[in-house]
Amino acid sequence: MNHIRVWGTEEVPLTECDNRILAQDLSASHDVPPFNRSPYDGFAINSKDTADASETQPVKLHVLETIGAGHVAANKVKSGTAIRIMTGAQIPDGADAVIMLELVKEMDESGKSFIEIKRTVKSNDNISFQGEDTKEGTKLAEAGTRITPGLIAVLATFGHHTVSVFKKPVVGILSTGTELLDVNEPLQPGKIRNSNAYMVAAQAKAMGAAVNLYQHREDDLDSLYENITECLKESDILITTGGVSVGDYDYLPAIYEKLGAEVLFNKIAMRPGSVTTVAVHKGKWLFGLSGNPSACFVGCELFVRPVVLSSMKVKKPHCKAVKAVLGADFPKPNPFTRFVRAVLTEEFDGNVVTPAGLDKSGSVSSLLAANSLIVLPGGTRGWEKGSEVGVLSWNGEGSEWPWDSPLFFKSSATKTAVKQQ
Amino acid sequence: MNHIRVWGTEEVPLTECDNRILAQDLSASHDVPPFNRSPYDGFAINSKDTADASETQPVKLHVLETIGAGHVAANKVKSGTAIRIMTGAQIPDGADAVIMLELVKEMDESGKSFIEIKRTVKSNDNISFQGEDTKEGTKLAEAGTRITPGLIAVLATFGHHTVSVFKKPVVGILSTGTELLDVNEPLQPGKIRNSNAYMVAAQAKAMGAAVNLYQHREDDLDSLYENITECLKESDILITTGGVSVGDYDYLPAIYEKLGAEVLFNKIAMRPGSVTTVAVHKGKWLFGLSGNPSACFVGCELFVRPVVLSSMKVKKPHCKAVKAVLGADFPKPNPFTRFVRAVLTEEFDGNVVTPAGLDKSGSVSSLLAANSLIVLPGGTRGWEKGSEVGVLSWNGEGSEWPWDSPLFFKSSATKTAVKQQ
Repeated sequence: MNHIRVWGTEEVPLTECDNRILAQDLSASHDVPPFNRSPYDGFAINSKDTADASETQPVKLHVLETIGAGHVAANKVKSGTAIRIMTGAQIPDGADAVIMLELVKEMDESGKSFIEIKRTVKSNDNISFQGEDTKEGTKLAEAGTRITPGLIAVLATFGHHTVSVFKKPVVGILSTGTELLDVNEPLQPGKIRNSNAYMVAAQAKAMGAAVNLYQHREDDLDSLYENITECLKESDILITTGGVSVGDYDYLPAIYEKLGAEVLFNKIAMRPGSVTTVAVHKGKWLFGLSGNPSACFVGCELFVRPVVLSSMKVKKPHCKAVKAVLGADFPKPNPFTRFVRAVLTEEFDGNVVTPAGLDKSGSVSSLLAANSLIVLPGGTRGWEKGSEVGVLSWNGEGSEWPWDSPLFFKSSATKTAVKQQ
Repeated sequence: MNHIRVWGTEEVPLTECDNRILAQDLSASHDVPPFNRSPYDGFAINSKDTADASETQPVKLHVLETIGAGHVAANKVKSGTAIRIMTGAQIPDGADAVIMLELVKEMDESGKSFIEIKRTVKSNDNISFQGEDTKEGTKLAEAGTRITPGLIAVLATFGHHTVSVFKKPVVGILSTGTELLDVNEPLQPGKIRNSNAYMVAAQAKAMGAAVNLYQHREDDLDSLYENITECLKESDILITTGGVSVGDYDYLPAIYEKLGAEVLFNKIAMRPGSVTTVAVHKGKWLFGLSGNPSACFVGCELFVRPVVLSSMKVKKPHCKAVKAVLGADFPKPNPFTRFVRAVLTEEFDGNVVTPAGLDKSGSVSSLLAANSLIVLPGGTRGWEKGSEVGVLSWNGEGSEWPWDSPLFFKSSATKTAVKQQ
């Protein structure tokens, strides 16, 4: 996270800023409402005129005019007069209260309009006061806030027809592997279709990145080096899938070395995704994810997500940590911390989480239903249905790191050690 | 919900189907993996050759060739031979097991390659079997499923370079009100900028609709009737904001009547949003939402959302119902059920919900932080900090209706009555 940088900002039209990340602090440039207004359909009056009004002694006021929302009264309200006023219209000068339409009796006399009021009205009754919602100068949102429909309403209110947002990091995606076919090719012996690139592209887009999806490449050191050099020119973050292990054709480690990239880590004590490599090079990021679909998916959510989101100053850039009750036995122990693709169900009374299909790193089908990862700290024991477990979710707002629960860590000692790094 | 209709389906490229709703059932068109393959870098062998192998009596096998992923062996594995095989490569004929690279000793003799194995290997060891992830014909997803990155991986695996998705309902949005300025206009006395249209547009887009955002219109019966008739031609669903109450310039009820639209309801015992009107006309929908921003927002989430999502066969089209602990007192009682804009925080140990700012229907600022609605059934009592309350959230997966908890209803009798409608 020490290598995080902001890629820049840009102005986009208000109608296209949905889900982007605000790059400016936002303050109220005027009061809301900007003037005293009527919250009801009724009559703007001077409350003193009603001081002696009662059932038996109604007060009669001359109605000078009617104003709808958006119109301003031509007259002032003087003693003995009223102005018919609709919801949202500005309170006329001289009026200090509004009485609702259904509480008066309207009448015409000699072509003039009058109302009768049979109760006293207090000063300030039924007025929405200037600034009662928001005072001018109030801080409303800060840079790093995701733009929601509610924030769009506020931006519109204050006249922002364009909005300053952080540039989307450009994520290049290059799958490697001689076994890969394109999605529109028929199956061939020994080959499988490239699914990782499309999946990672969708993950990166969901995080808020722009995506360059490159044609997949065969495992060839020289041509891969050329490809990666070219792709890196067009990308802020380059994700490769495959080629990161120790096999004869796993060329990524050699390519990182040839590039002179600074490898931050290239082995992680986790399953799946242990061969994930992350490097930085001239201010850009290189993520070497596993070619196994599930390992690739997990690596992207755990390591790419915080880089994409932090580069737009999002304050909770990591997967969301929640607690859930394990909905199925998970007897297989593992010395390494596991991230099990899972279905997290927000039941009305709490969260339940169940492993999603086959827990193998090569599994595609487990990704279909998965909306979360069960985190099972490494150790010698399995886990029983009903246990409380930590779960990471990539939907909705994220979390800060380290995740604030020992459920995610082997022991509190381990957690402390991680925190101190 | 009896008036729901599907607006059609369309084929979109795999790279553009993110977050769309699948319009076809999806089955596995082949086994995954499509062939037996190696999950590790190692040697494909005939396990019988290792029956007597031990530390003291290693077995020596002639290595015929090396195959990387995507390549098919030119040779068969016969007794006494092995094929060096990389992760993902197809198991050669004659081999029934793989031994990992690090468990053998490799050696060259007279230009030929050999390995020594010092342990017995069982048949089927280290083979990812054809179909072990997914068998051909397995049902994977059905129409109405939202397309996630994981589903995109599955679509790619099975060669779907285009995907059949439900057409986005076209939502037209027309704000009415003489008080409205456009977002790029300076404030004028008695006027406010149009924020509802931009907000509702963002809400509809987030639900998965396409949006036609129309220029706001003044309160004028004849021209509004013309506008609405024109907008309705281009829209499946037309949302108007404002003009639904009983004031002198609230023309929507008259316009619905003139259109001959079937008004489904036009008053709701709720706050805010009591004046919401919903009508159907020639297979299209008309939503007359309040001009008050918060009432407008709530009406859109409660009433427009299920129509948009159900028209794409989404199975949980309503706001998500969850339980939360009230994080602040809410002493004001109300005879009507209230939907209070709120901030729902998924704490690690459970949900906490707090009212977001000013609880008035005209409030814009309360929408800024709100990510949910606290539902407070009507009655004579207020609510204390620490109470359990029902909360509706528009993020993530939705719920079915009626919401499955008495927290949302006045009493179980009321709930039953609602269910029977």
